[in-house]
Amino acid sequence: MNASNKNVINVTPLKASEYFNGIISGNRVSLSRAITLIESSLEKHQAMARELVELCLPYSGNSIRIGITGAPGAGKSTFIDSFGSYLTSHNKKVAVLAIDPSSSKAKGSILGDKTRMDRLAIDPSAFIRPSPSSGSLGGVAKTTRETIILCEAAGFDFIIVETVGVGQSEIAVHSMVDFFLLIMIAGAGDELQGIKRGIMEMADAIAINKADGDNLTKAKAARAEFSHALHLFPPSESGWVPRVETCSALSDMGIDNIWKIIEEHHLAAVTKGYFDFNREQQSIFWMYDTITENLKSSFFNQQKIKDALPLFERKIKDKTISSYAAAVELLELFKNRK
Amino acid sequence: MNASNKNVINVTPLKASEYFNGIISGNRVSLSRAITLIESSLEKHQAMARELVELCLPYSGNSIRIGITGAPGAGKSTFIDSFGSYLTSHNKKVAVLAIDPSSSKAKGSILGDKTRMDRLAIDPSAFIRPSPSSGSLGGVAKTTRETIILCEAAGFDFIIVETVGVGQSEIAVHSMVDFFLLIMIAGAGDELQGIKRGIMEMADAIAINKADGDNLTKAKAARAEFSHALHLFPPSESGWVPRVETCSALSDMGIDNIWKIIEEHHLAAVTKGYFDFNREQQSIFWMYDTITENLKSSFFNQQKIKDALPLFERKIKDKTISSYAAAVELLELFKNRK
Repeated sequence: MNASNKNVINVTPLKASEYFNGIISGNRVSLSRAITLIESSLEKHQAMARELVELCLPYSGNSIRIGITGAPGAGKSTFIDSFGSYLTSHNKKVAVLAIDPSSSKAKGSILGDKTRMDRLAIDPSAFIRPSPSSGSLGGVAKTTRETIILCEAAGFDFIIVETVGVGQSEIAVHSMVDFFLLIMIAGAGDELQGIKRGIMEMADAIAINKADGDNLTKAKAARAEFSHALHLFPPSESGWVPRVETCSALSDMGIDNIWKIIEEHHLAAVTKGYFDFNREQQSIFWMYDTITENLKSSFFNQQKIKDALPLFERKIKDKTISSYAAAVELLELFKNRK
Repeated sequence: MNASNKNVINVTPLKASEYFNGIISGNRVSLSRAITLIESSLEKHQAMARELVELCLPYSGNSIRIGITGAPGAGKSTFIDSFGSYLTSHNKKVAVLAIDPSSSKAKGSILGDKTRMDRLAIDPSAFIRPSPSSGSLGGVAKTTRETIILCEAAGFDFIIVETVGVGQSEIAVHSMVDFFLLIMIAGAGDELQGIKRGIMEMADAIAINKADGDNLTKAKAARAEFSHALHLFPPSESGWVPRVETCSALSDMGIDNIWKIIEEHHLAAVTKGYFDFNREQQSIFWMYDTITENLKSSFFNQQKIKDALPLFERKIKDKTISSYAAAVELLELFKNRK
């Protein structure tokens, strides 16, 4: 490289097999560049990404995938820093993927959080990768799922997928992990402030964080309350009854108890055969989901449809057309496309 | 009609405008026959049904739509009989639509239940109509939504939509009503036995039924527990905090309290502008949902896709193809259809 090139980011195009060899031998640079390839929307990159994912697929699956969510301020990143370090101190390799398909404001918050993963950031057994916040939810979900496969092929034992708890992404993440953890803090009855409805019901466990100092009593009370409330829910498909535990990520207190819950859940799921069953169901779900999202985008990205939609929405609001008749007319418009 | 015709069911085809005139003047026979038209899958019936719904649309909307669900045995039909009679005794007209898109076994159960609505069945201010259990969920949802429009045009003040609480239909019903009520019974910690996850979180209120005799103490305890648990949920979009009340439909006890909750919810929603906003959002949602369901059925009903799906599902389970690559191949197959 000569001096005049010093500001050019030099990315020599590799073949899929070259990326694969790098990943399988645990090369972090190869892994990072492969994830960038997966994130690319260029058609030639997409084709190569598919080839690469197929190569990695037989080497994937040997991890525990943990989804972690919680409202802003609950201390998710501090928790992941503490929990991840606990795992690496037990000779485990940990990959952290941070998803945030919502606003650029929230993106800033996750990137800000990332710098707070002080220990993991310099831990040779850890790998942290934020997802780009641009693109559709379906696109982010696809990227994250394929990144999981790559990280597993690279030998990571734990894949932690972090989301911000305020959008639709939690449902997507819930459909790609083995264990879903909700991080909360104890407060004056507004523990779930900022958390969307439906998220608590997906949780396999709730960690009540910042259970230290003056907060300890409140955190213990919240633990009892939520523990009781979760028992009122109908049982989950796996038969697992969600658990609640307090912790203080800042002082590494109680992190081992959270791990014990995850370990117990994992053993139960493997023993019952639910673990493999759930992974298969998730993979099949994502095939159907990808097809549906693709059909929808072919439809709604057609210019005639884009032009007509506001008019039909207006007519529906004015009650001059029924929802069904509007759908039929739009479908006709789509079929008669030139 | 001469003697030789006495066993022939004589259904003269009417025009849409004739159905409409009958409905608008409150003729029950016209309403019933119009609903049968809406339920028909024949293309000529569908076209006429659309015309009829358009005619009724400007006369629709003036009702309170209440979704009622609960596990088998919770006493839904007894509750509806009591609650509906309470409303008709206050000079209100009540239509009851029972949806059950699940098994024919469950269908039997709803039809069985219907005969238990003793009072409403002979009440001139009430109209009871079970939905056919055949057909897709999307089809049943469409039928029910259009039936609501017809019933409103016929002057009903309350539309009660009943589901069995074990399937996907509750989510559909939740998207077409103003108020969603869950009927439960107090038991030994298994109050929600038979209720799918996610249903409790949709409820605007929970009625703990059969709160009489030996059950009263248990019911009151359950009321306190669920009331407390519901406060732990994140607030709903409307700002409404779900309520819990006990009642005994069999002895008409506490039914007025349930009504007071619904009335309070209605007043709050109207005052805040949430009522109209929610109805508009629901109508627009159903346009998008109808389009998506139609796109999916065009795809998945194609013979080549039907033939190929089991193979791709097998490959995914064997990890010889990724979810995304499988979706891409199936989409290619679909596009190249002859």
